Amino acid sequence: MNFPSNIFTSHAKEDGKFFEGLTEILGFKPKKLHVYKKAFVHRSANIRDKDGNAMNYERLEFLGDSMLGTIISKYLYLEVPEGDEGYLTKMRSKIVSRKHLNELGKDLGLLHFVESRIPKSNFGDNIHGNVFEALVGAVYLDRGYKYCERFINKRVIAPYVDIEQLEGKVISYKSLIIEWCQKQKKTFRFDVYEDAGNDAIKHFAVKLAIGGNIVAKARATSKKKAEERASKRAFYALQDKMGKS
Amino acid sequence: MNFPSNIFTSHAKEDGKFFEGLTEILGFKPKKLHVYKKAFVHRSANIRDKDGNAMNYERLEFLGDSMLGTIISKYLYLEVPEGDEGYLTKMRSKIVSRKHLNELGKDLGLLHFVESRIPKSNFGDNIHGNVFEALVGAVYLDRGYKYCERFINKRVIAPYVDIEQLEGKVISYKSLIIEWCQKQKKTFRFDVYEDAGNDAIKHFAVKLAIGGNIVAKARATSKKKAEERASKRAFYALQDKMGKS
Repeated sequence: MNFPSNIFTSHAKEDGKFFEGLTEILGFKPKKLHVYKKAFVHRSANIRDKDGNAMNYERLEFLGDSMLGTIISKYLYLEVPEGDEGYLTKMRSKIVSRKHLNELGKDLGLLHFVESRIPKSNFGDNIHGNVFEALVGAVYLDRGYKYCERFINKRVIAPYVDIEQLEGKVISYKSLIIEWCQKQKKTFRFDVYEDAGNDAIKHFAVKLAIGGNIVAKARATSKKKAEERASKRAFYALQDKMGKS
Repeated sequence: MNFPSNIFTSHAKEDGKFFEGLTEILGFKPKKLHVYKKAFVHRSANIRDKDGNAMNYERLEFLGDSMLGTIISKYLYLEVPEGDEGYLTKMRSKIVSRKHLNELGKDLGLLHFVESRIPKSNFGDNIHGNVFEALVGAVYLDRGYKYCERFINKRVIAPYVDIEQLEGKVISYKSLIIEWCQKQKKTFRFDVYEDAGNDAIKHFAVKLAIGGNIVAKARATSKKKAEERASKRAFYALQDKMGKS
């Protein structure tokens, strides 16, 4: 196979980089690195294992898709005791939508690790979500259910899932904050700056000041998300003053 | 609520029976009995919890359906390394088909425990499969992932899943055995008898004799299944003689 920097034949140094990047994304150390490598191989790379079976992320994607759905189902079941089966199904679809997963995979910079013969610029957006699902499948195989649940909590539920927003009750916390400030004739200011910290992934930090006082801080992988997160925090902090709208 | 023998207001004696029946079905002791009770409440029973939320098996069915799919996905992933994503998806659909799950729930006698206002005879076949899925959800909540996987292995994979049969490569092991006996001019005989053993569920046992010698025994919840299972065992025992067809 004449394939440059093939992750299956890579050197210790490249493995080390892969291991480090992966640890950052997962939040724990991977054990069986070869399982994760598979999660990043596009079918165009045309790699086969010693038994001649195609080796790419599609089978892991099948597994991860199912696992992701299950963890989200359990989360929703426990989180929304008043939601019936139809509600739970609808909410789960929103959380695991293509759009959502693509955004997530893009934020994590998963494409960086992908092996393919096709130039990466030729891929559509779905590659991000597909690889993310494959990664979930790899975690499940490598470390089992508990770690898989932990990974999904860290990378999907905690940063992305807001039941009220999903229900469409709140479109944007930022707009709620702006509206409130205008009504109250208070100044507001979002100070956003790049803050990578020790993360391999680019992060943005934001400080939200209202009437000259910093009321909330947040950090996320995009400016928009960091602002939204800080606004949400401010919203809950100010909720008594603002009244529940 | 004027509902006779309501499992939520039942006496210790009825709870004891439910516990025993459940332990038999699960293969382990349930811990939180109230979680399992919910798995057997049809919406027509119109039961609500203290917060006014509808209490029936539909939410658990949502959870169990997802969990079942995940366990089957993992099983197929590991069992069929040569199957691509399309193959795995197709096989999973066959295993968790309505027809299949209804048969399974019926064999386990789940309807016996169902609470409803509708006469049980009015239910369609889907009640069996729906309640089975809800039961999977209950196991997941009560005992976690590992027990859930164990339960599905015991009640779905071990007794029902035969990859070759699902692929349509083998229609019936019984017919293979009969065909072989006729070619070889050997007599064959299936001796079936009812054999409940200590099980709450009715079982059948079968002895398969070829040329006067017992070559396989099996036990299952229907005559047909017991015969098929004994034939499969005989098939593998005789495979060298029969050749792979």
